[in-house]
Amino acid sequence: MSRLKVAIVGCGYWGQNLVRNFSDLPDVEVTTVCDFNRSALARMKRRYPFVDLAQGFEQIVADWRIQAVVIATPISTHYPFARQALKAGKHVLVEKPLATSTQQVMALMELADQHNRTLMVDHTFLFTGAVRRMRSLVESGEIGDLYYFDSVRINLGLVQSDINVVWDLAPHDLSIMNHLYSDDPVAVSAVGAKQLGSPFENIAFMTVHFGGPMIAHFHLSWLSPVKVRKTLVGGSKKMIVYDDVSTAARVRVYDRGITISPDPHHRERSLAEYRNGDVCAPKLDDTEALRLMALEFVDSIRQKRLPISDGYDGYRVVRLLEAAQKSMQLGGRPVELAESFNPRRSIDSDVAAVA
Amino acid sequence: MSRLKVAIVGCGYWGQNLVRNFSDLPDVEVTTVCDFNRSALARMKRRYPFVDLAQGFEQIVADWRIQAVVIATPISTHYPFARQALKAGKHVLVEKPLATSTQQVMALMELADQHNRTLMVDHTFLFTGAVRRMRSLVESGEIGDLYYFDSVRINLGLVQSDINVVWDLAPHDLSIMNHLYSDDPVAVSAVGAKQLGSPFENIAFMTVHFGGPMIAHFHLSWLSPVKVRKTLVGGSKKMIVYDDVSTAARVRVYDRGITISPDPHHRERSLAEYRNGDVCAPKLDDTEALRLMALEFVDSIRQKRLPISDGYDGYRVVRLLEAAQKSMQLGGRPVELAESFNPRRSIDSDVAAVA
Amino acid sequence: MSRLKVAIVGCGYWGQNLVRNFSDLPDVEVTTVCDFNRSALARMKRRYPFVDLAQGFEQIVADWRIQAVVIATPISTHYPFARQALKAGKHVLVEKPLATSTQQVMALMELADQHNRTLMVDHTFLFTGAVRRMRSLVESGEIGDLYYFDSVRINLGLVQSDINVVWDLAPHDLSIMNHLYSDDPVAVSAVGAKQLGSPFENIAFMTVHFGGPMIAHFHLSWLSPVKVRKTLVGGSKKMIVYDDVSTAARVRVYDRGITISPDPHHRERSLAEYRNGDVCAPKLDDTEALRLMALEFVDSIRQKRLPISDGYDGYRVVRLLEAAQKSMQLGGRPVELAESFNPRRSIDSDVAAVA
Amino acid sequence: MSRLKVAIVGCGYWGQNLVRNFSDLPDVEVTTVCDFNRSALARMKRRYPFVDLAQGFEQIVADWRIQAVVIATPISTHYPFARQALKAGKHVLVEKPLATSTQQVMALMELADQHNRTLMVDHTFLFTGAVRRMRSLVESGEIGDLYYFDSVRINLGLVQSDINVVWDLAPHDLSIMNHLYSDDPVAVSAVGAKQLGSPFENIAFMTVHFGGPMIAHFHLSWLSPVKVRKTLVGGSKKMIVYDDVSTAARVRVYDRGITISPDPHHRERSLAEYRNGDVCAPKLDDTEALRLMALEFVDSIRQKRLPISDGYDGYRVVRLLEAAQKSMQLGGRPVELAESFNPRRSIDSDVAAVA
Repeated sequence: MSRLKVAIVGCGYWGQNLVRNFSDLPDVEVTTVCDFNRSALARMKRRYPFVDLAQGFEQIVADWRIQAVVIATPISTHYPFARQALKAGKHVLVEKPLATSTQQVMALMELADQHNRTLMVDHTFLFTGAVRRMRSLVESGEIGDLYYFDSVRINLGLVQSDINVVWDLAPHDLSIMNHLYSDDPVAVSAVGAKQLGSPFENIAFMTVHFGGPMIAHFHLSWLSPVKVRKTLVGGSKKMIVYDDVSTAARVRVYDRGITISPDPHHRERSLAEYRNGDVCAPKLDDTEALRLMALEFVDSIRQKRLPISDGYDGYRVVRLLEAAQKSMQLGGRPVELAESFNPRRSIDSDVAAVA
Repeated sequence: MSRLKVAIVGCGYWGQNLVRNFSDLPDVEVTTVCDFNRSALARMKRRYPFVDLAQGFEQIVADWRIQAVVIATPISTHYPFARQALKAGKHVLVEKPLATSTQQVMALMELADQHNRTLMVDHTFLFTGAVRRMRSLVESGEIGDLYYFDSVRINLGLVQSDINVVWDLAPHDLSIMNHLYSDDPVAVSAVGAKQLGSPFENIAFMTVHFGGPMIAHFHLSWLSPVKVRKTLVGGSKKMIVYDDVSTAARVRVYDRGITISPDPHHRERSLAEYRNGDVCAPKLDDTEALRLMALEFVDSIRQKRLPISDGYDGYRVVRLLEAAQKSMQLGGRPVELAESFNPRRSIDSDVAAVA
Repeated sequence: MSRLKVAIVGCGYWGQNLVRNFSDLPDVEVTTVCDFNRSALARMKRRYPFVDLAQGFEQIVADWRIQAVVIATPISTHYPFARQALKAGKHVLVEKPLATSTQQVMALMELADQHNRTLMVDHTFLFTGAVRRMRSLVESGEIGDLYYFDSVRINLGLVQSDINVVWDLAPHDLSIMNHLYSDDPVAVSAVGAKQLGSPFENIAFMTVHFGGPMIAHFHLSWLSPVKVRKTLVGGSKKMIVYDDVSTAARVRVYDRGITISPDPHHRERSLAEYRNGDVCAPKLDDTEALRLMALEFVDSIRQKRLPISDGYDGYRVVRLLEAAQKSMQLGGRPVELAESFNPRRSIDSDVAAVA
Repeated sequence: MSRLKVAIVGCGYWGQNLVRNFSDLPDVEVTTVCDFNRSALARMKRRYPFVDLAQGFEQIVADWRIQAVVIATPISTHYPFARQALKAGKHVLVEKPLATSTQQVMALMELADQHNRTLMVDHTFLFTGAVRRMRSLVESGEIGDLYYFDSVRINLGLVQSDINVVWDLAPHDLSIMNHLYSDDPVAVSAVGAKQLGSPFENIAFMTVHFGGPMIAHFHLSWLSPVKVRKTLVGGSKKMIVYDDVSTAARVRVYDRGITISPDPHHRERSLAEYRNGDVCAPKLDDTEALRLMALEFVDSIRQKRLPISDGYDGYRVVRLLEAAQKSMQLGGRPVELAESFNPRRSIDSDVAAVA
């Protein structure tokens, strides 16, 4: 099997991780790295002496050898770069979020269809042992019906200079929620604060409504003194605590719950019954998520199949970001979501690949 | 000095704590305990053989010996009971929340003024060593200007049978926020979910807006597998983490922060600078908060002065609860707050008493 | 069934807990409390108006109504008090450690046999949900063969004024170890330090040897800035972490282990293989241990059977304390244990009562 | 300034870290890496295309260009390799422990003196921000006189195939203790257990005696289900908790202590008084310790001065290991230490370089 020729665009912190992981993959060759910053390129050359350097994206587009392009540049460039690459017949992997609007995402999905190329977004967390385990717990029915998805992702910096905290941090948690809960949301409300005279929100609280009891909430901040990455997933049978900064147990499954029934004696009262059982922390696969993500990109190209985090996955995240942005501009007023367009696809088949 | 004669109404979990604490106070006599439940009264008699028992509130009102009444009954009864007691010329301490509407609170405040009696609400947390220390930290200017107040109070149950989670849990955190931050809020938004077919919200997220960058958020739930009582207070100089379930350090002061300045090179970008210094957990006074609260009630009666958590304190909490309730009914739409009426008062003088 | 008449001797911190628990038991009557300290007696009278007071132990011995005596006085008095009570035909429960020497313990056991009375030592921890669960885990074979028992019990104070830290704290952990591991130890070594000019060791490290690979170690201190009560129990199949100050999970069972085999290539080398599976925290019964202990005392009297923590249990602990004391005097030299005398008894039958 | 030519011997896990760190140093050139394992060499070549490879140590000794040799090979080879390198006039840095006996260490120190070359041992932890801060806390007198040094270093594996757990793990903690406490120890006692049929102890408890109240204890294990790296340092004024696996605060300083005075009323009793103040976690420099260690090696060569962790530092650690080994063979009997030979040196001067 001939080696897949890959170019990585953007050699920042994440780009370097991508280069390292793609370089380690079997049957893959990182032919070119691209960055407008000369010193960044020089650094890469020292570590990867045999890789070609490119300062302009055109070089990538023009290079007929390059079969796949990985885009790890600022968000505003995702759409134009992905667009050119797809048009040039290259497979494309884009950092999250896939683009800055659902319009752009749909345009890219159409291009990928036309040219019959893979379009994938790097929702890295879907490939962690923790999230994969949570997905299988939910799918197996062990958790029961989901009641809530409550996520906190706060730390001190790194403040982004060109987007707000929602567009920067929420994609992680939104993609995880979408991965665990497939129902279509009906509305989004969000409030934020622009501290320290920043032009962008650096603290935000976001709620996703589903038209039923299920509720999802996201706490995002660049201004917390402590680093927290914690998600509570409440189910009718069990509950999950996913603590991504825990060194001991990232996923804990609580055999706990409540049953509420009407009080026979008082019409307007109710009775609650508690269940309080064992707590278990399953052993998780600790393969680097980024490696599995890279493998999925390559494999989906080879298998000519949709990757797990495909364009539609990117769409589902971006539409929530769009709505949150709008709600913040409206001072927190809920923003209803239009009927989601849903390209025929089988989520399950993809999953098999990872699970 | 003659002993103050006190009656405690409601001998549930909290009522028993109140009886124990008032009984231990010097120059105070718990003459009567009142509960409609006979077995509850019998239990009290075993522990306090010399106390009188009353099954009806009328007995309390009619007893001319009783100078002060402590009301620890279901919320719906706060207003009628407090009203009768004040009219009968008795000093009144009411469990939080003071009443079910600002109308009721203002009526009670007026009654207290007319009869020249003390009206106090039991915002117990204001008397904890942790909150008192946080208040002095904020007042001393060590924290700087407040950026955010972010509180989480979640656990598994105890589900209340007659109110939602906001009215049950939020008063604690709202009273703490009001104690640390005196600016008048301008709007409240809240979303909630009624799980398990409960008639009341058992999960809720509430935001208080102040018309400036300062933002306050409250996460309240009866359906969390883990018990969390954590508040982050962000300031321009330092930040506080208040973890009320921590056995090690309830209050941690972080010498951390960020400075954001416009990027000279890109107009629409900004630059962030971090400060990351020591973390200190001050030694806290661990006197039982309920004892200090009881002392404040008695002392304010003797000193003929406003107690720290007076009627107006109760008002400031109830108006936020009212607005949150309304916002939840509107599906999360922000509810603007009317200009708060503000009886002349000096917060500082009260504080002296506790600090 | 007539109520069992019990006297509690010593109304200090622990004595008060004993009075409370025995008072709450069905078919038990606390007739008398005894303490040389008048104010302590007065305090008890306020809380238990119907109990008799005694300032001298003779009164207890002389009172023919009293059927059982609970001794919660300083260690030096355990033997003389228990001796008199047994001779007077009363059942006896003694705080840990049972006495200050194995000679004394054996004398008490003989007396109990002669007068056909129950002699029990209050090894409270054996009745906690945590230790009971650990015992059943070990007995079921789920843990496999025990490799080590490693316990840390340190905090800041409370420094005892008349004994060293080993005699004060070690009985807890030694009784737990004996409860989980029935093999007879062969030697004890211990080192200690007398800080701050104290006449007694306030830091000590103690090791119990079993003549095989199994090793038990105990870290005891009154001078630690942090409170730690943690025990690691290593088995050939699984390992247990028992954290008694954890609010989240007191007992965690780790499906982890190592297999070591000789290296085929290098005679003097070996190969290790790891197993790293799930971690589970079983739900524990949280009935107050002291209540179960009191129930066991009463039940063993009624059933005329040996209690779980009988005289022999006290003996097994005291002989280790004796040896540790001697080893510390020898600067840490191991002290061999004489063949333990073993009164015919079936441990298992007792266990049934608790398990 | 000409670049210092360095060879790294041993390309295992730690060797690779050494190559990475030395390669990143200014004015240093890693000319050669050496390993008997071909594939290990190949791996290094891929990452460092310009480095020479050597399979035999003779090549290193023979290469006149090489000025300094870093030895990261199995312990048994430390002495022969270091000896040859020093005789060939090369500066030498050796992994801990410096050698397998004090005889060897003293021989190497003498060789280094004769050839006027730097001999350094890699006691990496001395260069961590945590230990450097603890040293300055102790030196400043803020902690007061040291009462105890209590260290726990346990985890699941990595079991060493050619030495026991004491020789593998204790050097870290012994070097830290020596760095904080300069008094000469007088005796060592240690007990260990050989589990799983291993020829070497895989659990051990070691005590270092100083002839006064100060006591040091070390808990070492390869068979713990949980990873713990915790050290308590007790002082007469304050106490330190050093938790090396904590992500939040590695060093915590507790303003806590006890004063014990004789009880005026009972000759054989004593009274204790507690002090319980703030807890502070100072900000630590998080420069990679290995980089600072490498810098110190290079700098001490350039400055022709003794490095912080010089041969004598290695000697102080090895003599304790030797004694612990002997004590374990004697079943835990304390082993007295001979008068330590002490080459004239000023610790303080070295420290300045790091602090």
